[in-house]
Amino acid sequence: MRRGAAESGREPDRLGDQRPASRAGGARVASQRRAGSAVTARLGVDIGGTSTRAVVVDESGVIGEAEATSGRGVVAALDVVLATAQAALESAGRPTTSSIGAGVPGVVDARAGIVRHAVNLEIDEWHLREQLEDRLGLPAAVDNDVNAAALGARRALQIEESLAYLNLGTGVAAGIVGVSGVLRGARGGAGEVGHLSVDPRGPRCGCGRRGCIEAYAGGRFVDGRALFRMPAASPERQRFGWAVASAVISLLLMVDVEHVVVGGGMARSRAALLETISNGVVALEADSTFIAGLDAHRRLQVIDPGIDVAAIGAALLSRESAR
Amino acid sequence: MRRGAAESGREPDRLGDQRPASRAGGARVASQRRAGSAVTARLGVDIGGTSTRAVVVDESGVIGEAEATSGRGVVAALDVVLATAQAALESAGRPTTSSIGAGVPGVVDARAGIVRHAVNLEIDEWHLREQLEDRLGLPAAVDNDVNAAALGARRALQIEESLAYLNLGTGVAAGIVGVSGVLRGARGGAGEVGHLSVDPRGPRCGCGRRGCIEAYAGGRFVDGRALFRMPAASPERQRFGWAVASAVISLLLMVDVEHVVVGGGMARSRAALLETISNGVVALEADSTFIAGLDAHRRLQVIDPGIDVAAIGAALLSRESAR
Repeated sequence: MRRGAAESGREPDRLGDQRPASRAGGARVASQRRAGSAVTARLGVDIGGTSTRAVVVDESGVIGEAEATSGRGVVAALDVVLATAQAALESAGRPTTSSIGAGVPGVVDARAGIVRHAVNLEIDEWHLREQLEDRLGLPAAVDNDVNAAALGARRALQIEESLAYLNLGTGVAAGIVGVSGVLRGARGGAGEVGHLSVDPRGPRCGCGRRGCIEAYAGGRFVDGRALFRMPAASPERQRFGWAVASAVISLLLMVDVEHVVVGGGMARSRAALLETISNGVVALEADSTFIAGLDAHRRLQVIDPGIDVAAIGAALLSRESAR
Repeated sequence: MRRGAAESGREPDRLGDQRPASRAGGARVASQRRAGSAVTARLGVDIGGTSTRAVVVDESGVIGEAEATSGRGVVAALDVVLATAQAALESAGRPTTSSIGAGVPGVVDARAGIVRHAVNLEIDEWHLREQLEDRLGLPAAVDNDVNAAALGARRALQIEESLAYLNLGTGVAAGIVGVSGVLRGARGGAGEVGHLSVDPRGPRCGCGRRGCIEAYAGGRFVDGRALFRMPAASPERQRFGWAVASAVISLLLMVDVEHVVVGGGMARSRAALLETISNGVVALEADSTFIAGLDAHRRLQVIDPGIDVAAIGAALLSRESAR
């Protein structure tokens, strides 16, 4: 039930505000290259249901990027990945590149490098790692896009402790990164906080269960734009805030990550989202000194929606997932 | 809110059924020593609110054990630990011993080796690791008793994959062991599944929150003996089963451990408990193919209540927690 951090969490046009946009290799390219960079770089690709974004990162940060409309089916999707990767490399001035990583919405077997059931891409099974290595001649790694985003958020926010990246997109799921890397779980399913049920009489979720957090807070059930135009005290925002706060508290209770970073489509209204979740946390804390003792306010933040967490994290995958 | 796996999960008298009991050093001793054993052994002590149990383990399993009533306060509690450890060593024929580990109910800072808020022992702060090392001259390690029990269950059941040990005692909490060791969390609080709320209109928990799983399934709210005398289809058992099944499903969703092993006081009625939880899982699966796909029945088991998981796991702590 993992769904894209990417397709729902980004306003591509906003990037144009600050960065020059051009076209190359069929992909929209925005370059931040600094002249004379000779450091080894990494490629990261975020393959969303709508768009495919590639970044080139080195120790200084993002040094090149490109974006194109995602292809449908294995052949077209791979073509777009390769073209976007090449365009991003071009925009970075063709640095020496040591690896490529890809984040994909869907069920990803990170150990085997295989994507399964990427519904939005109309893909049933995709041996993506093998194909990337064959076509690019680079060590490759693949993971769920939410796990990738968790790594990207950790890097972008310069967090050294453990964190959960709580993605509020079409669906609701978390990527969990401990001090020893991504917590993927025995079957690649860790972080499915969106399908914790918080009310047996609650609304029916897409998964069939009643009262899933996703059924209160997922983009297929709640229109974020409409929601954040309502007053903070409206019942709709309170209900949404209660559900997301329940997800935050559940992550602290169950995996005790030091930080919970919220992102995804709902994070476009960053300040309003933080206010709404914080109000939800306050309500949960009011009942319980134990919950209040979790210190959730200080451990919670909403990430700047302009940061390409999934693509940046994908670029870090090769190293992280080797552990 | 971690509470004892130990004090609620054991019937000391039952041990006498199979093992000879004697007295030594003020502690009741049961010996399973095999003659001529020269292998290096480890000491494990489970310091419960009611009794303190020590075991000596080597590669073959438990080779000595002893039990005594726990002391109150730091001085008396330590005296009992030392006497029980000596008695267990005696019963094992004084093998060469390489380490001691202790599991304690309460908030344990495993990295610092300090026990805090062990309410049942009337202890506020206990520098237990340091005291054990000073008094015994052995490398020592301490952890929460539920984490220790998770390690012990993994060893006793010869599980190599990840597991969660779901303790149904006075309170409800889980110890989570991944392939790289115990998941303690950033603040030592991981595994607090008992305080996930599954119903905002549910019964009030000891923590103040409504609808906590512990408020349906914890020993301070439910009398296990009375419960398992009722028919399996009784509303009381169904409600209990639903709550515990919710804990099992939450562990699979959030940390995706391969196995969930249930133990603690409620596991005394082992077959009835498994039936009740399984019925709860069936009810949750009926609504959702996603939940059904978690394959919970095959991943779930109730441990034999005769196995000293917390003490055995405590003996493994030194090695595990060094990671």
